Amino acid sequence: MAELVKIAVDAMGGDNAPDEVVKGVIEALGENENIKIYLTGKSSVVNGLLKQYKYDGKRLEVIDATEVIETGEPPVMAIRKKKDSSLIKAMNLVKEGTCDAIVSAGSSGAILVGGQVIVGRIKGVERAPLAPVIPTMKGFSLLIDCGANVDARPAQLLQFAKIGSVYMENVMGIKNPKVGLVNIGVEEEKGNALTKEAYPLLKSCPEINFTGNVEARDIPLGVCDVYVCEAFVGNVILKMYEGVGTALLDRVKDGMMSTVRSKIGAFLVKPALKKTLKGFSTSEYGGAPLLGLNGLVVKTHGSSKANEVKNSILQCVVFKEQNINERIAKAVILND
Amino acid sequence: MAELVKIAVDAMGGDNAPDEVVKGVIEALGENENIKIYLTGKSSVVNGLLKQYKYDGKRLEVIDATEVIETGEPPVMAIRKKKDSSLIKAMNLVKEGTCDAIVSAGSSGAILVGGQVIVGRIKGVERAPLAPVIPTMKGFSLLIDCGANVDARPAQLLQFAKIGSVYMENVMGIKNPKVGLVNIGVEEEKGNALTKEAYPLLKSCPEINFTGNVEARDIPLGVCDVYVCEAFVGNVILKMYEGVGTALLDRVKDGMMSTVRSKIGAFLVKPALKKTLKGFSTSEYGGAPLLGLNGLVVKTHGSSKANEVKNSILQCVVFKEQNINERIAKAVILND
Repeated sequence: MAELVKIAVDAMGGDNAPDEVVKGVIEALGENENIKIYLTGKSSVVNGLLKQYKYDGKRLEVIDATEVIETGEPPVMAIRKKKDSSLIKAMNLVKEGTCDAIVSAGSSGAILVGGQVIVGRIKGVERAPLAPVIPTMKGFSLLIDCGANVDARPAQLLQFAKIGSVYMENVMGIKNPKVGLVNIGVEEEKGNALTKEAYPLLKSCPEINFTGNVEARDIPLGVCDVYVCEAFVGNVILKMYEGVGTALLDRVKDGMMSTVRSKIGAFLVKPALKKTLKGFSTSEYGGAPLLGLNGLVVKTHGSSKANEVKNSILQCVVFKEQNINERIAKAVILND
Repeated sequence: MAELVKIAVDAMGGDNAPDEVVKGVIEALGENENIKIYLTGKSSVVNGLLKQYKYDGKRLEVIDATEVIETGEPPVMAIRKKKDSSLIKAMNLVKEGTCDAIVSAGSSGAILVGGQVIVGRIKGVERAPLAPVIPTMKGFSLLIDCGANVDARPAQLLQFAKIGSVYMENVMGIKNPKVGLVNIGVEEEKGNALTKEAYPLLKSCPEINFTGNVEARDIPLGVCDVYVCEAFVGNVILKMYEGVGTALLDRVKDGMMSTVRSKIGAFLVKPALKKTLKGFSTSEYGGAPLLGLNGLVVKTHGSSKANEVKNSILQCVVFKEQNINERIAKAVILND
């Protein structure tokens, strides 16, 4: 039997915690025999929820945590003060080596800060980028960095490109992933000070498959597997996905409900439409990993349901089995 | 009779030039009696096209230009070399005071460079921002700056806010327009170095109605009338609108065509859907003005058809009649 992959799960983080988190954990345990979950949270509440499920008790441990970090709390302060919170207890399990990874749907800020401060960066990694998998017309791509550390330097963008390539190749199974630099034009000389300096670094790096600049309009088309950008820009891209999607689907619904004829049409179209649009949802691909840390930190959407929690947990298994952190460590040291 | 508004139109710029440009000019002349058009381009070609239309010959003048600036040409070089191009001849008409405005669907780069170099900035304006009107769920908003001058300074973002407010209030008719700063979080302390410095400048400016930071996800919802951002970010936002829209509508179409049932539904839904989605198209609002120049420069989409050319021309009339440039000059001098 393979060694168990040990994953700390923050039972109390997210809009649907702890119910959906616990449900997701149970589903993950059922799907994969090689994982052990350390569930941190108010033990009375968590144990109460667990009673309704059947599962392999040897592979689930509940770790009591009396506090919860709320979404609105200033992250740095929360990390410092709430030592007995479900998130910090889970992160400490990774720090001390008990767990390989942590999954949380809690406060993004606290996860990003906690990841860097508690779990810590791999030696040689300057910044730990948050890298969600985004849906595209061809399937999916990695958008790296969407984190909270803005104003990156050119050499950091190069690290993001290397780290993202390792992730896409070994976790998501994309051979020789194509790397694009998000820019305002495709020509080499285009861009701001950052992208102009980053371009030659990416171009001359033999470890990545750099294909040049990419305009934002081509991101949803899936022209590259790894989109490299500074975190402010990554944040804008990710949120535009969400915002334009919401606005446009709202228009589509309005249009469908505007006449009697269209209402009948909408009734007929709905099931097929639901199915195809599901593939364009960001929640299908599990959570966003915070890469380059001494252990994997996965941030799932605040609105995660059991299915996304489960996917995020299963993602950690591949990550561990493929020795991603060793590969990242090797990649950032090379050519630096 | 009011004084004629004189508008130079680049007949040769854009994917559908000169046919659709000429058609749009004729339509504009028909809709508004107070405009005179100076159409620059190869006179034999332009005059040939004009033969098929009836129009008021006193309000249309063809200015011969033997050259055309192509989309792929390096802008600075093109502006310097092609003195007899339709774009430069049109810009010179504004520079020398013959025309009040210029409309072109040609090379964005050449229009942006030419606007600053030939037409020139209003005294006190540090940068001329490109400010397209974008569709939102509430109607429309102004996104300022989406131009080619990246890495703006905080004081320049303040100018964009003032200039954008003048435009929205006086050209688009939005009273006391709400101004938002595009950022990665709504809290005042969020952001990169630029937005952190720009925030207090915007907050303490009495001439604008500043409502705080705006996350990209809320842009398509229309929470503000004027979205202020640095040009790299503006470019990403504008192109994400296009990219996500294209990808999502493609998915919707795929879904509708996937089963027999959905195909019937699609047939019934189509007319209503087409109508509502039209309002979410960027081409409905004419071209994007390059603001803060000694004359109005309007860049319409490269793929513009006659309707968009016409709308862009008519937009110039309001601009002139409302003395926008004087208002902009006044706004940037105040509190600077």
